[in-house]
Amino acid sequence: MAFWKSLFNNSANAIAPSSKTQSEEETLLKTGETKQESKILFSTTRSIDLYELEELCDAVGWSRRPLRKVRKAMQHSFLVVSMWEERGANRRLIGFARATSDHAFNATIWDVVVHPKAQGKGLGKALMNYMIKRLRQEDISNITLFADAGVVEFYNRLGFVPDPEGIKAMFWYPE
Amino acid sequence: MAFWKSLFNNSANAIAPSSKTQSEEETLLKTGETKQESKILFSTTRSIDLYELEELCDAVGWSRRPLRKVRKAMQHSFLVVSMWEERGANRRLIGFARATSDHAFNATIWDVVVHPKAQGKGLGKALMNYMIKRLRQEDISNITLFADAGVVEFYNRLGFVPDPEGIKAMFWYPE
Ligand SMILES: CC(C)(COP(=O)(O)OP(=O)(O)OC[C@H]1O[C@@H](n2cnc3c(N)ncnc32)[C@H](O)[C@@H]1OP(=O)(O)O)[C@@H](O)C(=O)NCCC(=O)NCCS
Ligand SMILES: CC(C)(COP(=O)(O)OP(=O)(O)OC[C@H]1O[C@@H](n2cnc3c(N)ncnc32)[C@H](O)[C@@H]1OP(=O)(O)O)[C@@H](O)C(=O)NCCC(=O)NCCS
Repeated sequence: MAFWKSLFNNSANAIAPSSKTQSEEETLLKTGETKQESKILFSTTRSIDLYELEELCDAVGWSRRPLRKVRKAMQHSFLVVSMWEERGANRRLIGFARATSDHAFNATIWDVVVHPKAQGKGLGKALMNYMIKRLRQEDISNITLFADAGVVEFYNRLGFVPDPEGIKAMFWYPE
Repeated sequence: MAFWKSLFNNSANAIAPSSKTQSEEETLLKTGETKQESKILFSTTRSIDLYELEELCDAVGWSRRPLRKVRKAMQHSFLVVSMWEERGANRRLIGFARATSDHAFNATIWDVVVHPKAQGKGLGKALMNYMIKRLRQEDISNITLFADAGVVEFYNRLGFVPDPEGIKAMFWYPE
């Protein structure tokens, strides 16, 4: 874990500089040299097994959402990033995030999640840095999100500023 | 103006209940009964004259944006609403707003603007209530926005709550 952490301290750079930037899949890093070798990789494919995604969201206590709507939301997100742990022939979904966008000025990041067993190792940071890198490659200048109170500090360390110039997050509630 | 104001106090209901809800255009109200008759109407078409939109944004002091990007942003917005004042054969763009969305859960409203000459008459409120109505018709449950400090109160009166449960607006800045 210490090994991962140090690798991720500059994770925007640490993300597989050798891999093709526009491909649908990038390897973050490899660990171990023997039969237990494991790889962390990112994918931007939208064809994720929705049951696997549901399991991941369950694991952090998020409430269930109709799969039909989840599928629609994935299709209409500008960017969908999933993070996988690969050991031999096995792949496990360990992280996820997506962004909506007008494809020109703004993107808003939603549903950032890392599996509890994979948390605290710098992987959330790597996932977010990967999102930011991809959004900037698409020439999006305004990257925004709505942060729950408990994770403001997590995003702040990544360069997100809370309520800049007095801007407020506003949510509409029916009367 | 007082006449408009009273009409808009319950503007979610006041918006042309007789018109077809899924059409691209709705008449908000008619004023005057003589040759000076003027109508306010909403449109959801994306084919707005971008120079006219630029003029509107100029009028409230927003900085200019490349038209190529504005066009792209309009194409990839989930909902685009323009507000027009019509007098006889003449139409003038007096208001605008758009929303990005995942088409399933969330929508985020951007670029809300009413021409300075038309402000303070309840038209911004009517425009926002129209946006909300349309988003709810599309089954969007989470309607959000990032409000500049000076307009938090405007949105608050429309049912938007600032930083609910400690949620923060976060914007990413390059290091
Ligand atoms: C928030 C979350 C994505 C973070 O993922 P993670 O892999 O544990 O985070 P990392 O290990 O990459 O942490 C990166 C840095 O942020 C810090 N950090 C992580 N979570 C934090 C939190 N909740 N509060 C404050 N700091 C936090 C870490 O200490 C680390 O600091 P360092 O760079 O100084 O070492 C993960 O905890 C999660 O999925 N939580 C549940 C879902 C959730 O709340 N999502 C956000 C909804 S808005
Ligand atoms: C903000 C804006 C859209 C409001 O439009 P408007 O047509 O003047 O607003 P309305 O007349 O419908 O006002 C509705 C209510 O909000 C109040 N209100 C309007 N602007 C307000 C403001 N800046 N602060 C506090 N209250 C405001 C009005 O007094 C009115 O109150 P009432 O219902 O009690 O009578 C308009 O002023 C504008 O385009 N401003 C410049 C662009 C801008 O700042 N956009 C927002 C970017 S986040």
